[in-house]
Amino acid sequence: MAEPGRRERLERRVRELEEELARERSGRAAPRARIETMSPEVTDTNPYSRLMALKRMGIVKDYEKIRTFTVAVVGVGGVGSVTAEMLTRCGIGKLLLFDYDKVELANMNRLFFQPHQAGLSKVQAAEHTLRNINPDVQFEVHNYNITTLDNFEHFMDRISKGALEEGKPVDLVLSCVDNFEARMAINTACNELGQTWMESGVSENAVSGHIQLIVPGGTACFACAPPLVVAANIDEKTLKREGVCAASLPTTMGVVAGILVQNVLKYLLDFGTVSYYLGYNAMQDFFPTMSMKPNPQCSDNNCRKQQENYKQKEAARPKQEVIDQEEEIVHEDNDWGIELVSETSEEELKAASGPMPELPEGITVAYTIPNKEENLITEETAAEAEESLEELMAKMRNM
Amino acid sequence: MAEPGRRERLERRVRELEEELARERSGRAAPRARIETMSPEVTDTNPYSRLMALKRMGIVKDYEKIRTFTVAVVGVGGVGSVTAEMLTRCGIGKLLLFDYDKVELANMNRLFFQPHQAGLSKVQAAEHTLRNINPDVQFEVHNYNITTLDNFEHFMDRISKGALEEGKPVDLVLSCVDNFEARMAINTACNELGQTWMESGVSENAVSGHIQLIVPGGTACFACAPPLVVAANIDEKTLKREGVCAASLPTTMGVVAGILVQNVLKYLLDFGTVSYYLGYNAMQDFFPTMSMKPNPQCSDNNCRKQQENYKQKEAARPKQEVIDQEEEIVHEDNDWGIELVSETSEEELKAASGPMPELPEGITVAYTIPNKEENLITEETAAEAEESLEELMAKMRNM
Repeated sequence: MAEPGRRERLERRVRELEEELARERSGRAAPRARIETMSPEVTDTNPYSRLMALKRMGIVKDYEKIRTFTVAVVGVGGVGSVTAEMLTRCGIGKLLLFDYDKVELANMNRLFFQPHQAGLSKVQAAEHTLRNINPDVQFEVHNYNITTLDNFEHFMDRISKGALEEGKPVDLVLSCVDNFEARMAINTACNELGQTWMESGVSENAVSGHIQLIVPGGTACFACAPPLVVAANIDEKTLKREGVCAASLPTTMGVVAGILVQNVLKYLLDFGTVSYYLGYNAMQDFFPTMSMKPNPQCSDNNCRKQQENYKQKEAARPKQEVIDQEEEIVHEDNDWGIELVSETSEEELKAASGPMPELPEGITVAYTIPNKEENLITEETAAEAEESLEELMAKMRNM
Repeated sequence: MAEPGRRERLERRVRELEEELARERSGRAAPRARIETMSPEVTDTNPYSRLMALKRMGIVKDYEKIRTFTVAVVGVGGVGSVTAEMLTRCGIGKLLLFDYDKVELANMNRLFFQPHQAGLSKVQAAEHTLRNINPDVQFEVHNYNITTLDNFEHFMDRISKGALEEGKPVDLVLSCVDNFEARMAINTACNELGQTWMESGVSENAVSGHIQLIVPGGTACFACAPPLVVAANIDEKTLKREGVCAASLPTTMGVVAGILVQNVLKYLLDFGTVSYYLGYNAMQDFFPTMSMKPNPQCSDNNCRKQQENYKQKEAARPKQEVIDQEEEIVHEDNDWGIELVSETSEEELKAASGPMPELPEGITVAYTIPNKEENLITEETAAEAEESLEELMAKMRNM
């Protein structure tokens, strides 16, 4: 008598546990099948309705084209993870993710990763989350450091052949790394391959950042104008002393990922104005923009080659075509003719600046150290200035 | 013999299932205990090290203060959910979340919610995710529409009494709703309570957005300058026809949430310049700023009362204190004296504008319909302008 009762209890317990496990798992598994064609239908169950609405709103001509593109994201940290999530939710065709780091609790002050993922590799944790979010996207993840010799070769191979159609290059490489060495590796690879890419960065004090579009031969590459700290030969490792870490904020990184992916969408889907450089100064809510010509004396041999190719292509094009092609490259749909102009004139800038180093054409310094003695406005010089103005007026009167 | 074998198999199966369930659950539960004090220690397991580094970097004087603040987020959609996640990861003391909507697959083109949460209430799903991310934050969620009479009373009660210390008001209310009615309800509540709040919004075509700081009596409230569509008495429901939905992008919403929470951090932790209004035009990467005085003829009686209170307080303060207090309110730490100036002069604007309606002091129109005949520059008028310049020069020469 006792045996069957015990068996029944055990059988009931197995059923209960199996149900519980199924419930637990259903909460994590992707509850939708892959979707063959993006539909503009407005229903609660269509994950693409709000994106397809961009066509009806007159913003994007052909939103479905997003499914044909492949983007490589290098660095899946504070900016890269959110970048990958945004592209996944937008329904990008394929994502290649590169990172060699592990998720740590110390990353929890930025978006995307969750505490239970601590210890997993960033690319593995990201792929799991992103597949659940959108099973229509193809993922290819590489858990390695792109700067070592072997990995660099493999990285070059994958960005030149890893598109949706195997053997074709990716459409865009996004640099979301946090160090100079990795940026330089991406720059070297893209210069050699002629691969268009976008750079992103956040300052160590967490309150500024930027994004930048780099077209090999057409714009300055990362080696054309290296950051001052590197130009000054300061070893980057000395900046990362034990017990010292950079500050970071989910806000700044979210904004940088947002403006980066917005620039990607504008570039791939051909709408709005693609920014060459967009900065974010969080302290003052200031967003500087600029563009930079390549340095003919760039230390990267492939950059100089790409510059020659670019010039030859530009020269070979018939006049009308040049304009069309240029528009195609820069996506400058500027219907209202809005121009970004500096509020400071070149003369004012020169007067307030210190000695300028000799630089090749197209390169300018962000700032100089003003020579105080030269620029000090004493009462005497102010008086002189007044006098010469009056002299000028007098001359005009006598003209 | 068969019975014990079966029992053993069942017992083994129960053990297996229990272990599997435990593994499944451990992957979702928060793997860290609550943290009593924020530490600046740089270890992989410290979720606050990168935030505490803001002190060492000279950005924030007292970062730990974040744990004393309570913020209410109204609307947990594309902007509100990311806003709540950023505040949670920053270690805010307490969050109050208000929403009455359910998660749908149609929300998956924006950050935060995941497909397996479809069908859950947004506040319930958000609370579950956010608690896992940071168990140090206190949550209070309300699954209702704040615009109905009963709920509005309850909403007023919670924002005036729901701080960490029960009975005290929240430090800030954030509006992340998507309709005029809900914004107006928040505006009414905050005007009555004298509660400072921030507004956010994203356009229906998904490519622009804004955030705004509203200090009752000190700045224009939402009723001081209602949107044109509402002023023109167009029923909002006619805009939401069946089969028509607004477009949305994770990029734009991520940027708006990022600049909103950045403004919240600057306001609460007293660093940088708090923006009164910051817009985001994604097509041109343009970020307009402005500030607006309250309308003395505002239709909201409580706004007019708050304006009187504000004026009296300003007048009652000793001169020096006024400056200090004003700085405290607006957080205008503008060390470099950066000023935002319009690139268009008032005269230029007037010349290019149509007839201006009569408006109370402090209110301006965003644009007017130019009177084409008056502004048409014919060859004749251009010639006249040239002539008068020459006349002027001639007069100067003859002076």
